[in-house]
Amino acid sequence: MTLNLVRMPLKMNELNHHSPKEALEFLLAHGAVRYTDTGQVTHLPCSLTPWKPDLGFVTETEELTTLYTEMYHRVAQDDDFLHTELEKARQADEFIERLFQAKSKESGPKPSIYLNRNDCMPANLSDGSIWPKQVEMNLMASALGEASSVVYRMHRFLSQHTERRFKENYAGRGLARGLAEAYKAMNATGIILLLIPVGEVSVFDQRITETRLVEEHGLKTMRASLEELGEQGEIRAGDLYFRGHQVSIAYFRTGYSPRHYLSEAAWNARNLIEESTAVSVPSARTQLANTKLIQLVLSTEEVLSKFVSAEVAARLARSCVAFTKLDAPFTGTDGTTELGRDHALKNPDDWVLKPHREGGGNNFFGQELIRELEHMSARQSEAFILMEKIRQPVFDSVRMVEGQAIPCRCFTELGFFGTAFYEAPDAQARENIANGYLLRTKDESMDEGLVLGGFSFLDTIQL
Amino acid sequence: MTLNLVRMPLKMNELNHHSPKEALEFLLAHGAVRYTDTGQVTHLPCSLTPWKPDLGFVTETEELTTLYTEMYHRVAQDDDFLHTELEKARQADEFIERLFQAKSKESGPKPSIYLNRNDCMPANLSDGSIWPKQVEMNLMASALGEASSVVYRMHRFLSQHTERRFKENYAGRGLARGLAEAYKAMNATGIILLLIPVGEVSVFDQRITETRLVEEHGLKTMRASLEELGEQGEIRAGDLYFRGHQVSIAYFRTGYSPRHYLSEAAWNARNLIEESTAVSVPSARTQLANTKLIQLVLSTEEVLSKFVSAEVAARLARSCVAFTKLDAPFTGTDGTTELGRDHALKNPDDWVLKPHREGGGNNFFGQELIRELEHMSARQSEAFILMEKIRQPVFDSVRMVEGQAIPCRCFTELGFFGTAFYEAPDAQARENIANGYLLRTKDESMDEGLVLGGFSFLDTIQL
Repeated sequence: MTLNLVRMPLKMNELNHHSPKEALEFLLAHGAVRYTDTGQVTHLPCSLTPWKPDLGFVTETEELTTLYTEMYHRVAQDDDFLHTELEKARQADEFIERLFQAKSKESGPKPSIYLNRNDCMPANLSDGSIWPKQVEMNLMASALGEASSVVYRMHRFLSQHTERRFKENYAGRGLARGLAEAYKAMNATGIILLLIPVGEVSVFDQRITETRLVEEHGLKTMRASLEELGEQGEIRAGDLYFRGHQVSIAYFRTGYSPRHYLSEAAWNARNLIEESTAVSVPSARTQLANTKLIQLVLSTEEVLSKFVSAEVAARLARSCVAFTKLDAPFTGTDGTTELGRDHALKNPDDWVLKPHREGGGNNFFGQELIRELEHMSARQSEAFILMEKIRQPVFDSVRMVEGQAIPCRCFTELGFFGTAFYEAPDAQARENIANGYLLRTKDESMDEGLVLGGFSFLDTIQL
Repeated sequence: MTLNLVRMPLKMNELNHHSPKEALEFLLAHGAVRYTDTGQVTHLPCSLTPWKPDLGFVTETEELTTLYTEMYHRVAQDDDFLHTELEKARQADEFIERLFQAKSKESGPKPSIYLNRNDCMPANLSDGSIWPKQVEMNLMASALGEASSVVYRMHRFLSQHTERRFKENYAGRGLARGLAEAYKAMNATGIILLLIPVGEVSVFDQRITETRLVEEHGLKTMRASLEELGEQGEIRAGDLYFRGHQVSIAYFRTGYSPRHYLSEAAWNARNLIEESTAVSVPSARTQLANTKLIQLVLSTEEVLSKFVSAEVAARLARSCVAFTKLDAPFTGTDGTTELGRDHALKNPDDWVLKPHREGGGNNFFGQELIRELEHMSARQSEAFILMEKIRQPVFDSVRMVEGQAIPCRCFTELGFFGTAFYEAPDAQARENIANGYLLRTKDESMDEGLVLGGFSFLDTIQL
């Protein structure tokens, strides 16, 4: 860790939100840390001043979470829909093709377990109100629940002598509880296998979750990389075994990006899970439903109504950002219809160019968006989509990075975590709740928003 | 932190007790860390292989804890005894004199709160059995309760697929609970003020305790150095105030060594606490009762019987190590009587030369003991005592320091934490329990035993 006490001159008893040492030591004492690229350890970036938002925005974002979970569960069960909408993409994108292959191995109907996060931006609407616009629903490897809880607890602790109140955030505890409740509802007896990426810097969040499963819920866990499971996993009488232990649930904290599949063994792991009785969190079909291309299609009331009631469809549609494929016709708010790429080239500041896979990073804005669009082949275009750029409220904050307080003008993104369990594909949800949040605030001068990249920081909602 | 992943070649799923990476990440995720002297952060040293002791030794050590707490409570209330036994020492040692001065400020009878740790060695007795010999009763600033709990949880977690069972260790939770229960029994309404040393490297243990007081018990806390309290504290209508908050309990995590009193302001803090209604954990009188000179006197059944029943006195005496002042006559097991220093000079390997204040370090053995004794003036001698050196069982262990596994031949020391509350000096204990432990194992080649000095490491009892 590169922190030096000499750089933190504030007196130790400065119980206010500008005291990096107080915040720093709280984070270090409660595991809100990560590895650096060089194998050292540092605290996660966090805010020293919580965000005081429009509460209508917060409530709607929270309530949308369970509605989206239900909707995506229905989408994931709809083979025809997935095949139709992704037919072209699987030809352009081997990753999607591989997921379809994994799905084809499915041993039969299984329970579904969701540990989600529904990331929304506060958007300034033209009527002056602030409303959630969904950035993406994370149906896989939703991270930073534990770290977010620690930051919430830090803000509350440092405010103990004030009247400040915060939106409760026990996201980490909630994710572990959701997984454990599902395990128990399944009458499972095997282990929960955490699948983790090699060289992950954010292992501590997972470690706390795993500890909770064992300590608070009495479950047995193991950890493996996809490669290890692919090489050492085997199916006996339909059940998946890893190193002598039956796997009841395979919980992915990796696998959402092609870079997580370093060899055929990794894909073999996916196939083994699908082929066996083990429940995959998420399944290959859920991961397919969670692609950007599907999100694009699910952004109109008409399509949403296929999966949820008209009332819910209208509510979800209101939270949808406009999407377009690069080479599909798109009708703008001014009524003109032309190809998505042509809209974007004319109005580069109104759009974001994104790969349609998960995992963050590699988004293009403004002049970079123009340069990318101009050099992209038709086949490459299939791997990208254009997303409406939202006008967000900007506010003042102070972030702490490497023990240093840095004032900044910021915008933010709020994601409520959700846990859900369905005993069978067509069953009603036995549980579907929102539980805690990730508030990810960013310096407005930064276009990317990865906490682990140091571009953004963990924040808390002040009531 | 100087750890480098490259130096930890074990595969991440090696769920055995020789996997430093598994242990390391558990510790970092749960706050078992400390600052280094250069302001960086590293994990606390811990064992990778738990210790499997004689359980008779463990049970007796645990049970002795509450007996010693009761005995020391009685001693601390006995002004005549303290004055008689420490009369000479207060002339030689300004620190003891200052504590007497603080005690003289006492506003009147107060409740007593104890957060103790009773450190014992397993001793090989001549009959072949193993029995606890008390090293010291810590009545002040008993540390590493939280860190010990984390190491216990780490061992249990890493053993989840085995039949291994461990002696439960929720020492940290127990200390916070003991303090909170006392606060509630007092019907207190002010804050708990943690008094902490400037530049402390082991702040994280305290941070977790403080967090528990606020989160789990709904109390209000502040932190201050002795100097800050001495400069900014004031008494209003008998109550102690610090920065506008009434202080109900002053909990010392500093103050046991002269080096913690950097100015007159620090002593002023002691006096303010004694003069006010604030309960001092511990009080000046308790700290006086906790000096090495008093421990020396309390090592025979005859003296112990003044404070506890004959039965308890016999049991405590059995756990006492032989002590002698340097210039007092001492009768050895061979029946010869001569001055303590002469015994030690003839048998330097049977004795340890220690300062009679708390805080660890500065102990002399063997040839160093001879050199010190030969150069010590009569006045200097008053500040030291000689303690019988105990023959301890030696065993194999593996410790982890800076992420590296190091096999070693070891001996160990076991201290159960105890919490107690007395509503008045002469009252029966409203609570007096043992709750969790510090098992501090040391490489046999090291004579000193400070975990924070890196000389020893946190360990767990396997059943």
